[in-house]
Amino acid sequence: MTDDPRQPDADPVESATPVPQPEPEDDEDDEFLPRPELLDRIHAAIEAEDAETLEQLLEPMHAADIADVIERLAPAERQTFLRLYSIEMDGEILSEIDEAIRDEVIEALPREVVAEAVREMDSDDVVDLVEDMDDEDRAEILSALDAEDRAAVEQSLTWPEYSAGRLMQSEVVTAPEHWTVGETIDFLRAEEWLPEQFYHIILVDPRRHPLGYVALGRLLSSPRTTKLADLTEDSFRTISADSDEGDVAYAFNQYHLISAPVVDDDDRLVGVITIDDAMSVLDEEHEEDILRLAGVGEESAITDTVMETLWQRLPWLAVNLATAIIASLVIALFEDTIGAVVALAVLMPIVASMGGNAGTQTLTVAVRALATKSLSGKNVWRVVRREAIVGLMNGLAFAVVMGLVAWIWFGGVSLGAVIAIAMVVNLAIAALAGILIPLGLEKVGADPALASGTFVTTVTDVVGFFAFLGLASAVLL
Amino acid sequence: MTDDPRQPDADPVESATPVPQPEPEDDEDDEFLPRPELLDRIHAAIEAEDAETLEQLLEPMHAADIADVIERLAPAERQTFLRLYSIEMDGEILSEIDEAIRDEVIEALPREVVAEAVREMDSDDVVDLVEDMDDEDRAEILSALDAEDRAAVEQSLTWPEYSAGRLMQSEVVTAPEHWTVGETIDFLRAEEWLPEQFYHIILVDPRRHPLGYVALGRLLSSPRTTKLADLTEDSFRTISADSDEGDVAYAFNQYHLISAPVVDDDDRLVGVITIDDAMSVLDEEHEEDILRLAGVGEESAITDTVMETLWQRLPWLAVNLATAIIASLVIALFEDTIGAVVALAVLMPIVASMGGNAGTQTLTVAVRALATKSLSGKNVWRVVRREAIVGLMNGLAFAVVMGLVAWIWFGGVSLGAVIAIAMVVNLAIAALAGILIPLGLEKVGADPALASGTFVTTVTDVVGFFAFLGLASAVLL
Repeated sequence: MTDDPRQPDADPVESATPVPQPEPEDDEDDEFLPRPELLDRIHAAIEAEDAETLEQLLEPMHAADIADVIERLAPAERQTFLRLYSIEMDGEILSEIDEAIRDEVIEALPREVVAEAVREMDSDDVVDLVEDMDDEDRAEILSALDAEDRAAVEQSLTWPEYSAGRLMQSEVVTAPEHWTVGETIDFLRAEEWLPEQFYHIILVDPRRHPLGYVALGRLLSSPRTTKLADLTEDSFRTISADSDEGDVAYAFNQYHLISAPVVDDDDRLVGVITIDDAMSVLDEEHEEDILRLAGVGEESAITDTVMETLWQRLPWLAVNLATAIIASLVIALFEDTIGAVVALAVLMPIVASMGGNAGTQTLTVAVRALATKSLSGKNVWRVVRREAIVGLMNGLAFAVVMGLVAWIWFGGVSLGAVIAIAMVVNLAIAALAGILIPLGLEKVGADPALASGTFVTTVTDVVGFFAFLGLASAVLL
Repeated sequence: MTDDPRQPDADPVESATPVPQPEPEDDEDDEFLPRPELLDRIHAAIEAEDAETLEQLLEPMHAADIADVIERLAPAERQTFLRLYSIEMDGEILSEIDEAIRDEVIEALPREVVAEAVREMDSDDVVDLVEDMDDEDRAEILSALDAEDRAAVEQSLTWPEYSAGRLMQSEVVTAPEHWTVGETIDFLRAEEWLPEQFYHIILVDPRRHPLGYVALGRLLSSPRTTKLADLTEDSFRTISADSDEGDVAYAFNQYHLISAPVVDDDDRLVGVITIDDAMSVLDEEHEEDILRLAGVGEESAITDTVMETLWQRLPWLAVNLATAIIASLVIALFEDTIGAVVALAVLMPIVASMGGNAGTQTLTVAVRALATKSLSGKNVWRVVRREAIVGLMNGLAFAVVMGLVAWIWFGGVSLGAVIAIAMVVNLAIAALAGILIPLGLEKVGADPALASGTFVTTVTDVVGFFAFLGLASAVLL
């Protein structure tokens, strides 16, 4: 516990006097959000085209919150907003705005405003801004930068999309290994330009290979004469510029990194990635997984228009229609059976639905386990076995329940037996499909989150209908 | 671009010579993972009960990776591992181990090993370790700590579970506002004990109210005579100890915070939260959302046993069975119709399945939008309208397709018309249910991710079957 010695009684532990409290309440959800009243007043100011009030309202707000406000506006409202507020739009706000509407925003702003905004940005934010633009727009934006910054951005753009090279910022604080704490501090004080945020001094050799890094806390608490080489952190690891940004986020989370040097193929320092950027990537990757699992284009945003939304949803529904028709073809095989025993038509969706749900459960766990790299090697077969057993046990449990329900409902023992057996078969198959299909897709380099769902439900529908109706026609007719 | 002036040519921008490259490859997924060979050798060493080799193999590994290895072992193997490796188990490894198996691990370790490990941990890690233990075990663990650390942990435990108070560490570096850079550096050099990691000096008044903070980078690059008060960051914001950890993670991600002071009800400093902890929370919350959406207990882990897994899955399947039976009751209303036109039994699952998928798409987008706080106020009604229109348009598109398919398949125009109309109705309802149900659950304080899925698919099944079969019996009989 470090503390101001002149305030011996000011220990945070002693000083606090909280009483045990109930679970955090939901209304705290908005603790970090602009209050609704404020939002209403902003809407009012826009409608009234009252630029002055608008500026007063937004002045105290964080750039990220202003960006959210802009994202929440209806397209028409947004245009008005940008006209009223254009001169206030700075680099911070611009880099916070969701990609989905960023182009629209940039279009609406005067060229000089954009140019000024871009000049304020860190190189990584500029890269993020221009990477999806066509060459012409990109050139126009970059022309606003001075030669060195432009070089940094263009350098970063030579790395593949979604790579560490695109994520990093080129502004790095380095020092040679032989420096002392004193020399380093004097150097930092002399340096008129430093990155907005930096957390480590990266030690490099004359050929610019990173050798380690020193946390600023260690630097500050060590005597001037200490050598930097004696203060380096164990956590040090470099990230290669072409590694996938998802893996970078994984590494930051796994190893509690705060910043990490990025190196090129010759293992030379080209930039640094800080944890806040890694955190956004982690956030986006999760978002994409959730949307993919639900069969929604991962690009979808709350700001999307009707047509954008339609085009994200339609293809997935088309795929689902195809698979649903396949399932129907199975049912069609047994039309006569159903004609004879209509109860089958009543009960068959239950078998299919239970299979679909059980499959989705297993599938989701498997997809997440693959994403978190915890499903590989020896582990795989233990998990597959576990899922199969659980599927079987669930099948048996619900076989008993559904068997009795069907028996009582339709007064036929054999009908009860048929649905019971079909239930066991389908839930066992569902479990296997739920784990093996994502594993298979991963093996062939496809994204399990993307395609697994459709495959699994197709399997469970087909197997469910076939097992139930097939058995029925064998037993009941 | 800050750089060692003695290496003018060592600019990271100029120095790098990467060539444009293809998308990052998937095999890089394992870039940050222990190689499979290594894992095999570890398994071999455990089987051979060769403690020495085991230590050699694990010695170079990061605690987080060792924890992963332990999590991936089969239960029996894990026991052997812990026996062989027990003395090496330190606080770092212990705090990295997944909650699902942590108790098992602690049980298996000699008391003195656990005690030693706990002494090494930061207060927030100890809290995380003991918060789910019964009082007896907790007392035993805490007895290993010296009075002050124990006080810090017990203090933190007085805050609600999943609150900032549980997440924070009590070790804080503070300074009075009137200090200069020089005084602060001298103080830090004199202080023999400092937190492992700290990124800001928090300025407090004599009553320990936080007034602002100074980034260590600013401190290092400023002359000794500068007042701390002149170096404070704009990003400064405090977090109240009882706010929900999910909101804390949101705030860190939204405002790019690196560390944030935590205050009690009297706005006095009680601790600090660092971004790496916030990042883990963000990761867990996403994980829980994905699992909840799939109807899997959010506690489920890859290490779970068969029985644990069974008990997580069974309740959700039971709920699904109930809803599936409700859907069947709707079908049962139309047994005669189906008896007369068996084609209806063949086609009806298609209507239900399309509705279920469309509903899930909307639902997922809505749940995520709520989680990211981007769905509220004026925004809501625009999104509801958008979803309704998209649902209607999808309905019309697939009505045409399915109408033709049914017509051609079964040669009945009116049958085609019936399924077409049912499709429009169900997809429109699906869209509305997909957005309104999560909004409703959020309103009443329930977790939309948890319950929405079941409600939505129930709605789409019931509406789908009712619309299709109801229309059929009106039109076709």
